[in-house]
Amino acid sequence: MDDLVTAATRVVAELKAVLGDRLITSAAVREHHSHDTSRLRPHLPDAVAFPRTEEDVQAIVAACAAHGVPVVPFGAGSSMEGHTIPVRGGITLDTREMNRILEIRPEDLLAVVQPGVTRKQLNVELRETGLMFSVDPGADASIGGMASTRGSGTTAVRYGTMRENVLALRVVTPDGTAIQTGSRARKSSTGYDLTHLFVGAEGTLGVITELTVRLHPIPEAVSSAICSFPTVANAVEAVIEAVQYGIPVARVEFMDEVAIAATNSYSRLDLPVAPTLFFEFHGTQAWVEEQARLVEEITLGHDAIGFRWTADADQRTKLWQARHDMFWATKAIIPGYDLYTGDICVPISRLADSIVAARADIDASSLKGQIIGHVGDGNFHTAYLIDPDNPAHLQEAEEMADRLVERALAVGGTASGEHGIGMAKLKFMRKEHGKAVDVMKKIKAALDPLGIMNPGKMGDEG
Amino acid sequence: MDDLVTAATRVVAELKAVLGDRLITSAAVREHHSHDTSRLRPHLPDAVAFPRTEEDVQAIVAACAAHGVPVVPFGAGSSMEGHTIPVRGGITLDTREMNRILEIRPEDLLAVVQPGVTRKQLNVELRETGLMFSVDPGADASIGGMASTRGSGTTAVRYGTMRENVLALRVVTPDGTAIQTGSRARKSSTGYDLTHLFVGAEGTLGVITELTVRLHPIPEAVSSAICSFPTVANAVEAVIEAVQYGIPVARVEFMDEVAIAATNSYSRLDLPVAPTLFFEFHGTQAWVEEQARLVEEITLGHDAIGFRWTADADQRTKLWQARHDMFWATKAIIPGYDLYTGDICVPISRLADSIVAARADIDASSLKGQIIGHVGDGNFHTAYLIDPDNPAHLQEAEEMADRLVERALAVGGTASGEHGIGMAKLKFMRKEHGKAVDVMKKIKAALDPLGIMNPGKMGDEG
Repeated sequence: MDDLVTAATRVVAELKAVLGDRLITSAAVREHHSHDTSRLRPHLPDAVAFPRTEEDVQAIVAACAAHGVPVVPFGAGSSMEGHTIPVRGGITLDTREMNRILEIRPEDLLAVVQPGVTRKQLNVELRETGLMFSVDPGADASIGGMASTRGSGTTAVRYGTMRENVLALRVVTPDGTAIQTGSRARKSSTGYDLTHLFVGAEGTLGVITELTVRLHPIPEAVSSAICSFPTVANAVEAVIEAVQYGIPVARVEFMDEVAIAATNSYSRLDLPVAPTLFFEFHGTQAWVEEQARLVEEITLGHDAIGFRWTADADQRTKLWQARHDMFWATKAIIPGYDLYTGDICVPISRLADSIVAARADIDASSLKGQIIGHVGDGNFHTAYLIDPDNPAHLQEAEEMADRLVERALAVGGTASGEHGIGMAKLKFMRKEHGKAVDVMKKIKAALDPLGIMNPGKMGDEG
Repeated sequence: MDDLVTAATRVVAELKAVLGDRLITSAAVREHHSHDTSRLRPHLPDAVAFPRTEEDVQAIVAACAAHGVPVVPFGAGSSMEGHTIPVRGGITLDTREMNRILEIRPEDLLAVVQPGVTRKQLNVELRETGLMFSVDPGADASIGGMASTRGSGTTAVRYGTMRENVLALRVVTPDGTAIQTGSRARKSSTGYDLTHLFVGAEGTLGVITELTVRLHPIPEAVSSAICSFPTVANAVEAVIEAVQYGIPVARVEFMDEVAIAATNSYSRLDLPVAPTLFFEFHGTQAWVEEQARLVEEITLGHDAIGFRWTADADQRTKLWQARHDMFWATKAIIPGYDLYTGDICVPISRLADSIVAARADIDASSLKGQIIGHVGDGNFHTAYLIDPDNPAHLQEAEEMADRLVERALAVGGTASGEHGIGMAKLKFMRKEHGKAVDVMKKIKAALDPLGIMNPGKMGDEG
């Protein structure tokens, strides 16, 4: 331990010479980088570095490698499962100053950005082009962080997750070498797919220094629809039928009764308190109208109530704002309480059962909670309301979130749809991936033999 | 060398006991597995194994691992760059008897197949479901082979390549362990993306024993269109505009003048001899009509001549049959000659220039040749006609194919859009991927320390 402290001190001194006041050891800055949005125990880094260039990143990683000191990449700090907690100290590498949009190529439908660029920043920059970056997790996350957690959001059903939207990367590997993965071509059959290896690796295999991401045309027309159902099963079956019919729904979000009641209260809406779907359609004017008509027909076949669609931008914005404010609406159910969130993804055929079971579990507990989901993908979230001063609440929520995952794995699903492993879900890695975890560990050991990249996480634990 | 012969003899004896007459050492069978469709020098395997189950595959790989003998996975034998040539002998593992469709789950839009199932076999089986497997390389390839080469075809622009259509795998790793990668959920944020690591690894990291692939709804309506242009640039710019407009074209194929003249002659068509685009649109009746109208408008803005669209299935079939017969049509330009093919992919903004340069190169050579392309992806193929008995022809074709790749790499493209590396393109790995090749080699060495999986290919050479 003494050795590690000495080593860290040396690295700090070396990096101070390179980065000057972009290497910070103040208590406040270290504290800010000691946690993410999860409830996991914080841990302080020895220092926080703010690189601006790939060369800066190389210098940081090389110094850490020379002394065996951990490097923990950090984006916007919005991750939810402990990804960025520097559990073994070392240097947190904050990409916030790597926030330049390097290139926008409308003809190739791609942009090249530094990892600290946020999704909203990129979309503002894209305004004049008629193109958009589609991936939209709740937070205004950094694009490097979104890639590292293989993030997604409401539009994944149509435009894909970060898995589908990262075309190429530049990465500094754990020995300080900078590499390029992928190319600007839309497809390629050459070489191992390193791009997809680094996407979702949660900073355990290297530091992403540049991303080439796909852009999509902003649709000529957008329309929304909302309807409620007597049961969860009705709602989910309607979604399955719409997807099977090939209707390219751009968004389809589910909210259960509790979520609807909360949003009615918080966002001053008067939606029927019942399992509800929000749809969004993208296309030409005629095509969005047809999609809405087809979906209406399908939902009516599953006993939908009050199907309403609108091409009106203000109404649509109000509806989606209410959806995005769901976190606050749920928190407001019991003032002063916190939310404990769950995140799983199941084969869509098992979605209705999974949501029903999650609801029953909440109802049988002493906690209140709601369920919302990106149901076109089979991905949904639970949020349990807990008293932050009551350890029994935390324990009950944890147990419920664990059962949620166990049920997902039992039906061929995954322990996380979009929040990632971090530290909180390490315990499920072996259960979900079995002996494949050993292959992951071999890759980690081969690429990071010193174990300096975000240690104590995926690749060496679990 | 003596050692390797002895070792192979031992493995053959051991496997004979396990596989019986599914382990074959006859000259004819070994010869059949000594080559692929490329012009590369054949090499005989010591024996060919025909496993039926994952356990068979494990037994084969474990025996080879115990004696350090190469294992070379083999699908339909339709690869084009030497992928399956057992350059160091050993056991060729032919998956043709692993041809069972294990499960079709229409609600989840997925199928689970053994690797020897061919794409046509799966689509026949899917007929009653209203679903299709979309990836369509020219040959009736095995799905395991298509995954291993990260193959694609004419529909990738809309439905993706094997990269997007393989959801999960079972793989026997080089030490004989069977692992599962991915899950049945449509998205996941858990663990390193091993699925994408094995897709495109060309059998150098393990043997795929099972694939979970995505299915897509067969569209309610399909229509086709064809038009010609005064120049290549006009045609490509029309495609770029259609893609940027967000029209979800299902197929868009380019043929140059030489290809059109050949197809006119071979398939008895009377298309104007000029750069030509074939389009296909999928959707509802109204939506395919609108797509065709929009695309017509766009093509007219780029001086298209004679835009003709049809929803008539017979006419459409005739058109696409002609496209699929392109290989034979080109071969027929000079009876007795062979085709030497090229395959690159570039950012779409560089496509017109790339095709013009490829055409100029052919025109300046002593060879005849044509150019066709999956132009929505920026991917195109050249085919040079060579006299198989004239080594100067082969050399000239090789040099021209090399220049094609060099130009692609110079504009941020890739050495192969869909045919893969095999042996023929190993020489470009370093040029395209730079230091990332070292990371690939580390992964190969970590997963296959004995170097038994398809040796002499990607991961240890290049």
